[in-house]
Formats: sequence, C-alpha cells, structure tokens
Amino acid sequence: MAFDPQSLHYDDKGLLPVVAQDHASGEVLMVAWMNAEAVARTVSTRKVTYWSRSRQAFWVKGESSGHVQRLVDFRVDCDRDCLLVLVEQTGPACHTNRRTCFYTAVRDDDEIELMQPEA
Amino acid sequence: MAFDPQSLHYDDKGLLPVVAQDHASGEVLMVAWMNAEAVARTVSTRKVTYWSRSRQAFWVKGESSGHVQRLVDFRVDCDRDCLLVLVEQTGPACHTNRRTCFYTAVRDDDEIELMQPEA
Repeated sequence: MAFDPQSLHYDDKGLLPVVAQDHASGEVLMVAWMNAEAVARTVSTRKVTYWSRSRQAFWVKGESSGHVQRLVDFRVDCDRDCLLVLVEQTGPACHTNRRTCFYTAVRDDDEIELMQPEA
Repeated sequence: MAFDPQSLHYDDKGLLPVVAQDHASGEVLMVAWMNAEAVARTVSTRKVTYWSRSRQAFWVKGESSGHVQRLVDFRVDCDRDCLLVLVEQTGPACHTNRRTCFYTAVRDDDEIELMQPEA
C-alpha cells in the first residue's frame, strides 16, 4: 500500500510523537515531534526532520550541530499516531552532548545520572 | 536527588508520552501516556500503568489481557517531558497480538507489514 503522510493521525496541533532509536545499538536516543510535512521530508530526504515546538519551525536534526540522523527505517504504530525512526546517529543525540536524552534513571526513588556529556 | 512525579513537565492535558522498550531485546514495543499519578503508581508498584486517553482511566498494562509489563528501569529525558520505561514484557505488547505496535515499515514509499499476530 502506498504510504501517505496525511493518513497518519496527528493531534490537535497537527503533530505526533516520534521515537528515534539507534539502528545498530538499539538505544532509544530521543523523542521529538513531526507534522505531516516533516514526515514527508524525512521519508524523501532520509534526513530526520522534526517540527520544533519551541521554535515553531522545521528542524533538520543536526543541521547546526552536525549531529545528524540518517534515516535507516521508518515505522508506524498500530494506531497510526506515533512513529519510530531507526537512525544512524552522528555524534551525541542530546543537546546536552550526551549520547541519548534518556540519561537520568529513577532508582529507589532517587534520580541517578547514567552518563556524562561527551568531550 | 529524590524523584518527584510532579517535577516532570506534562502537556496541557496533564500527560506525557512514554516509550516502552523490551529490556532484553531492546525492541521498542509501544508508546502510551502517563499523568503524574500513573507515574507514581508505575514507580511504586513496578507494574507499568498508563493513562488511557480513550477510556479516560488508569490502564494497568496487561490487567485484562495478561500481557503485563514489569518495570525494570525508569528513565527521564533531558527536558523532563518524556519517559522511557525498560520492561519485561509478558506476551505481545500490541493489542493486535503482535510483539510490538511498530510492525509497519515504510520502504520505497510503500507500507510493509513486518510481522503477524502471535498465535
């Protein structure tokens, strides 16, 4: 079946959440948001492109930092309201310069920092 | 630092997205939503508990299907507006009886079904 970005189910702001996972390590790197046009650009350019809610603008991941995400595989969930992108990540995914945004664990009711920013 | 569910950043409906990942295989299983009380229940009971947006009720994953998610590790992202739960998944995670909700890939502009429902 031909894929149509308009066939996905976006929220009342026209967005859906996107999970980015490292295709090789399986590490979950980040969650960000796409609108239909960001979905179309991601699939056609293979450069993962989000919609920045804070800047209200397209966000080609890594365009300024160089920490780009090359699309390896694009997945849609059963409800068509969430995406999973498997990516080849250049450099750290997180704006704090850590490999993943999920660097804080909650263990025994305490917050633990699992990794440091990369040099 | 002591973890406080109220310290997370919820959206205008009081919810945040939660990625569930199989702790052993690394497979991303599903994305669902939690409010602050669901976060507190998940951390204290170790049974992953979402907020069902369709039913507007707490949703102890697997309570009716038996396909429970035991919490192995709980992660907070850099912006504190998204969670990652590493889980031990009993049975398929998806309501379609597939292992993961992300069973549809988009390749060469076509949708491809990657797996069948489990028997």
